[in-house]
Parts: sequence; C-alpha cells; structure tokens
Amino acid sequence: MTAVVRRYSKGVAKRASILDAALDVLEREGETGASLRTIAKEADISLAGLIHYFPTRDVLFTELQHELDERAAQTYFSGFPSEDPGSLLAAAMRANMERPVLGMLHLMLSTAATRPDHPASAYFKQRYTRMHDVFAEHVRKLQATGAVGEDHDPDYIATAVIAAADGIRFQWLSDRSIDMPGHVLRTWDTLLGRASQTVSD
Amino acid sequence: MTAVVRRYSKGVAKRASILDAALDVLEREGETGASLRTIAKEADISLAGLIHYFPTRDVLFTELQHELDERAAQTYFSGFPSEDPGSLLAAAMRANMERPVLGMLHLMLSTAATRPDHPASAYFKQRYTRMHDVFAEHVRKLQATGAVGEDHDPDYIATAVIAAADGIRFQWLSDRSIDMPGHVLRTWDTLLGRASQTVSD
Repeated sequence: MTAVVRRYSKGVAKRASILDAALDVLEREGETGASLRTIAKEADISLAGLIHYFPTRDVLFTELQHELDERAAQTYFSGFPSEDPGSLLAAAMRANMERPVLGMLHLMLSTAATRPDHPASAYFKQRYTRMHDVFAEHVRKLQATGAVGEDHDPDYIATAVIAAADGIRFQWLSDRSIDMPGHVLRTWDTLLGRASQTVSD
Repeated sequence: MTAVVRRYSKGVAKRASILDAALDVLEREGETGASLRTIAKEADISLAGLIHYFPTRDVLFTELQHELDERAAQTYFSGFPSEDPGSLLAAAMRANMERPVLGMLHLMLSTAATRPDHPASAYFKQRYTRMHDVFAEHVRKLQATGAVGEDHDPDYIATAVIAAADGIRFQWLSDRSIDMPGHVLRTWDTLLGRASQTVSD
C-alpha cells in the first residue's frame, strides 16, 4: 500500500514538474521552440518518460492550461460565490499581465482549438460554460436582491464580460499601458448599469 | 515602358495569387501544415520564387492579414464616415463567420505578435490605433449632435467595442450558435446608452 501511494505521489509531482517546465520553455523559447524534446530536457526526464505522461504536445499544452486555470481558480475564485466575480476576474487578469506567457498560451490554444479534434477544443467548451454560469448566476442573484434591474439580461451580460476580458488582451499586446483589469471592472459595472457613462441621457 | 508595366502588373498579380494560395492552404492544412513549400506548390511557383516576394513565413502571413484587412475595409468601410462604424464592423464579422480561417489567421498572428520582433507586432499596433480612432471619432460626432451624452467616454467606448469584437470570437469557437455580429451591435448600443438593458434603474 505504501509503495502504491509513493508511486502515485511521485507521478503527480513529476506531472506537475513537467507542466512547470513546459511553461518555462514556452516563455523562453516561444511557441515554435517549445518542442517535447526541449521540455523533457528542462524537466530532467527522458522523452519517452515525458510521453508516458503526455502523449502529444497538444495534450501537454491543454493540460497545462487546465492546471493553470485550476491554480487561478483556487487563488482567485476561492471566495466565490460570496465575492463579486468581476473583481475576481480582474485580479486573475492582473496576474496575467505580470506573466505574458499566460496570455500567449491561451491565444495559442485558442488558435489550435479551431480544429475540433484538438484536445483544447473540448476543454475550452467546458471552461466557457463554467465561466458563463458563474457570471449569469451572479447577475440573477443581484436581480433577486434588487441591486440590478429585471430588464438586464444575465446571459448577455455573462457573454459580454467574458468577451471583454478575452478581447482586451489583444489591444494590450499592442499597447502595454492599457489597464486590463480596470477595463474588465469598468465593463462589468457598465453592463450592470452601475457606471455613470452608461446611463442613457 | 510597356514591358515595365507588364512586369509590374505580373508581380502584383503573382503576389495576390500567393496570398490567396496561403489562405487556401491555411484553411485546408491548419497552421502546422501551412509551410512555405506547400503554399508555393499551391500557388504554382518555385520556393525560391515565393521567397522573392515573401522572405519568411511570418512576413507572408502578416501581409496576408494586411491584404484581407484592406479588402474588408474596401468592402465594409467604404461608407465611413457617413455610416455607423458599429454596423460596418458587424457586417465584417458576419463575413468572418462564413470563413472561420479568417478568425484563425487573426488568432495565430496575435499569438505570434507577442514576440516584439514579429512583423505582425508593428502591423497590429497600427491596426488597433486606426480602429480606435474610427470609433472614438464617431462617438465624438454623436456627442456633438447631442445624440450621446457628454458623460460618455469616447476612448473607453472605442476600446470596449473593439475588445467585444475580438473577444466574442473565443466563445464562438466553442459555441457556433453565438451571433457574433449581433453581440457587437448590442455592445455598441449598450456602450452608447442606446439599449434598454443598460439604463440604470
């Protein structure tokens, strides 16, 4: 039993260290330089050993995104549902600004996921559904307390705040002075009718 | 003189046919399959001939994006500034939905442009500045006529409508039932305070 547990733990640790190595290599070498061979070398494992954990590069990077999302959820969304999801998303984006490779991985996988057979395709579908539910749910909660009017559409607002967060990354890549978390918060407030600039005159 | 003109025209036509071939190959083979060699074959030109026009794959795809943007501007933005830029952007996005490779190229180059030495990096910077100016300018015009209140921030609105258009692509990749042009129009109206769901209660 002890041996099984130890083997299992060792596997989990090895898996995590490969994912960390993949992120480091991607950051240093860019997309084209981040081969399985280079990642294996960085993780101090044989190529065959790496392939035992992650059979293809597509699987490896999709799992890396999954792992990073899980870590971000634990760090930023542990306060949900008592905390405002707009503020939590903004905090997560602030971390993204400090490490541009995180945004790059997301863009890279989104491009790849246009192929329906890519593992990121199914993963992103789940991810967007989950995020959508978090925001739409919160708007409905605000409506139940009367803080947001019944004429607001929770599904549109959820779609729009997620699009704002994904979309602002592009402009930020061209102009690093853009305050991405600030943009997300301002859009969230605007959509909820909380910001002065959206009040119809 | 005639010979020079003919040579020039032949060059322009060859250049355009290589870009068309690149788009076809990208659509059929995906990013990893779209090598310069495959594109040269598709365009019925030697690899050396292709490299004469486009020295690297990065330059080729950046020029392809530039060419597609120019064509879209001629098709959709010829009516600007007399027509509403939100409607024009929505029309351009409708064309994107019919040919997903157009969105894929944009994502692919945006990922690559995270490297400041990539030719797409400078190109996107110009492109976002131009788009921003078009939208901010239009909001200021609406403010001058009194159609939009002075408390609206033209620069925020321009940034936000462009982010909405870029961002909604991601969700659409996971759920093709999303009406991307409709989302952009709704967001544009919301930002301008024209839509009922943004009127604060």
